Amino acid sequence: MDQQEKTKTILTGDRPTGPLHLGHYVGSLQNRVKLQETATQFVMIADAQALTDHAKEPEKVRENLIQVALDYLAVGIDPEKTTICVQSYLPELFELTAYYLNLITWNRLKHNPTVKVEITQKGFGDSVPAGFMVYPVSQAADITAFKANLVPVGEDQLPMIEQTNEIVRHFNKTYKKEVLVRAQALVPKMARLPGTDGGMKMSKTLGNCIYLSDSSDVIQKKVMKMYTDPNHLRVEDPGRVEGNPVFTYLDVFGSDEEKIAELKAHYQRGGLGDVVVKRYLNEVLQEFLEPIRVRREEYANNLDAVREVLQKGTERARRTTAKTLSDVRSAMGINYFDPALLSS
Amino acid sequence: MDQQEKTKTILTGDRPTGPLHLGHYVGSLQNRVKLQETATQFVMIADAQALTDHAKEPEKVRENLIQVALDYLAVGIDPEKTTICVQSYLPELFELTAYYLNLITWNRLKHNPTVKVEITQKGFGDSVPAGFMVYPVSQAADITAFKANLVPVGEDQLPMIEQTNEIVRHFNKTYKKEVLVRAQALVPKMARLPGTDGGMKMSKTLGNCIYLSDSSDVIQKKVMKMYTDPNHLRVEDPGRVEGNPVFTYLDVFGSDEEKIAELKAHYQRGGLGDVVVKRYLNEVLQEFLEPIRVRREEYANNLDAVREVLQKGTERARRTTAKTLSDVRSAMGINYFDPALLSS
Repeated sequence: MDQQEKTKTILTGDRPTGPLHLGHYVGSLQNRVKLQETATQFVMIADAQALTDHAKEPEKVRENLIQVALDYLAVGIDPEKTTICVQSYLPELFELTAYYLNLITWNRLKHNPTVKVEITQKGFGDSVPAGFMVYPVSQAADITAFKANLVPVGEDQLPMIEQTNEIVRHFNKTYKKEVLVRAQALVPKMARLPGTDGGMKMSKTLGNCIYLSDSSDVIQKKVMKMYTDPNHLRVEDPGRVEGNPVFTYLDVFGSDEEKIAELKAHYQRGGLGDVVVKRYLNEVLQEFLEPIRVRREEYANNLDAVREVLQKGTERARRTTAKTLSDVRSAMGINYFDPALLSS
Repeated sequence: MDQQEKTKTILTGDRPTGPLHLGHYVGSLQNRVKLQETATQFVMIADAQALTDHAKEPEKVRENLIQVALDYLAVGIDPEKTTICVQSYLPELFELTAYYLNLITWNRLKHNPTVKVEITQKGFGDSVPAGFMVYPVSQAADITAFKANLVPVGEDQLPMIEQTNEIVRHFNKTYKKEVLVRAQALVPKMARLPGTDGGMKMSKTLGNCIYLSDSSDVIQKKVMKMYTDPNHLRVEDPGRVEGNPVFTYLDVFGSDEEKIAELKAHYQRGGLGDVVVKRYLNEVLQEFLEPIRVRREEYANNLDAVREVLQKGTERARRTTAKTLSDVRSAMGINYFDPALLSS
């Protein structure tokens, strides 16, 4: 283990609004499984953040909390190596958010680029919930509470890290103490897996996902319906491999590189039907997903153990967040019950 | 004790940004001393709220926290009858604020009339701290956390109670349970004591206050410099009693009604000098403030006891706020670790 890597503290996580899919696996889960070996890693199920735009359907958040936890355990996030925790059970995060909100202006919140895009995407119009506008500050609380110096994010989330570091600078300067730690974004190389429809990314709302929890039958059906090269009409026609998600998935999940190279060449020169390639992709994905599904079912049959993982992880996480809040209050000088501070 | 009154739960308090003065006594403190006999009363020192516009001077908040506590004890707020607590040590309030922020829109926050006036008064311009914009929601968290049904406020604060009740309605409707309690404003009859300068109200920023902690000398100097009738130039001139704060104070703090009526008549017909009336007011105020100052000094010499009052009060308050948060989470169905809710 590299000495430098051990000094890294990572915060990452997911909003529990749906089960996780292959896109999550490629974009983040596989990295977490690796990073837990070399870094201090906290993986947070961000239920409070999910509620900022799902206030009217908390049952969705509750139901998916356990789905996400099962997905984590199924792919090999190891609770002995990674602290898996639940955001809303870390009260320090809410309190830190309150103090940080005093350090940035209302106008600054309005101009967060990520939030602006999301407001349009979610079609909020004039009815943006106040909590949603505020979520970049709550995210800064998450990151700084763990004193995380490495935060895996997609490109589109870079303004969030900027907002966090703005708060870090502002806090440390205002209270004249280097309490909060600057975070660095870790943008994964292979950030996005295309959807089964060939779209830019897998997304629950687009209905183009293969979930880690999908049954063998469902996987097969989804693969056989996948988008390919729309100009590859007859078997004998030459087909395109670029932008063809069937081949992208083979590149990502297949292990027999020689066979995949051969299939690509055959497809490009013509004479190879989509169905043949899809059948092979189905085999590859079944092989990849089966052990994940088996582990997932084992945990699903022992939810008490899952709850224990979440509770113990959250307790462990709280030791860190409580320490940070204590440092923060002490830097602000509002730890009044410290006898040294109580004077008239 | 009236049965109906016993069913009242009151939340009230102060932002610890300065010691309390006679205006506070008249507008709120004296009522609290009365109400503690018949209602369940929580008095909260709102340090977190004070930080929303004093983020850069937390030391001011810390120093005044103890001053305000001393003022409370000095005027007779009895920690056995009233729960005196410190806002920032009630983490449930921050969490409730987060959930309530999801139930109201960003636009609604912008249009709070009280906040709009305060933004102008405080000269924030374009630099309103986000935390300041959000404070009506945090106030709703305070009120509802205690399930307070009676909240003493000035006329200018009525939109805050409205905002609170809007959240109460919205929450109970969204989560289909009558968890939160509607609050009623209690606007005191004698809301405002004029300043020593004859201005509408006593206000630290205007420098027209007599503080509960002022020394005997300071009180005398402030009284002798008080504004009176500006047209009462010579002793023999008739003087005005209305709008003359010296007489207003005598009405409020004096007990010898006959003597005060006599002085008024004499002043109005002419022949009574300001100095004579002020000397009498000085006597009256010294008599009123001396026992308060003596008690204040006793407590100031025993700050450990004051800290204990605050700590015990806050612990007692937390039992209530924790119960409310638990009810809130249960209504939202996000009390995941309840085994009955954990299903896949």
